[in-house]
Amino acid sequence: MKNTSHTNFDRMFHALSDPYRRAFIEQLAKGPAAVKELAAPIDVQLPAVLKHLRVLEEGGIVISEKVGRVRTYRMRPDAFRAMGSWIEQRQSEMNDAFDRLAILMAQTPEKKDH
Amino acid sequence: MKNTSHTNFDRMFHALSDPYRRAFIEQLAKGPAAVKELAAPIDVQLPAVLKHLRVLEEGGIVISEKVGRVRTYRMRPDAFRAMGSWIEQRQSEMNDAFDRLAILMAQTPEKKDH
Repeated sequence: MKNTSHTNFDRMFHALSDPYRRAFIEQLAKGPAAVKELAAPIDVQLPAVLKHLRVLEEGGIVISEKVGRVRTYRMRPDAFRAMGSWIEQRQSEMNDAFDRLAILMAQTPEKKDH
Repeated sequence: MKNTSHTNFDRMFHALSDPYRRAFIEQLAKGPAAVKELAAPIDVQLPAVLKHLRVLEEGGIVISEKVGRVRTYRMRPDAFRAMGSWIEQRQSEMNDAFDRLAILMAQTPEKKDH
């Protein structure tokens, strides 16, 4: 069960399970930012900020680039593609299951009439 | 930062960060199932199965109902609503940011002509 694809999904969803990491994503979705800009609005020490950013990078959500002494983070364009399509597929199956149930319930009174 | 809404998101995304819990969701999206049916296809002891199901229930993904000695799990109809709209909002901001960048890049050669 622990193949590569599962590990990726584990890391992706784990990356989103923290309010600071989601706050970084909310900032980066609007455009790239340096570590200093990401750390500024929150009351967290730099080592913790860097650890959160590493989790986001390992989860395939962000990429980073170092120019001189400044490391800049940006969203991966496909950050949400895999998890988005996993969720959509489940939602579509759920809708189908609800539809089947609705058809079943609609048919029940008819049976009573016979 | 640790308000109720954040806690809910933490739990939701954490609930999805495990391959066994995602396998349960994949099964339940197709229709309700009893604990025994959920445990059958996987090589995991019952206490671990119940723990995973509790995490899914605390994450607002599933609900359960006990009739006699049988506990049945089903998807919450709104299981993915909050996280789906969070992801959609980020994706839409990312698209806007890419569009702005594309416009900027398209304008660059014009400036060179003057």
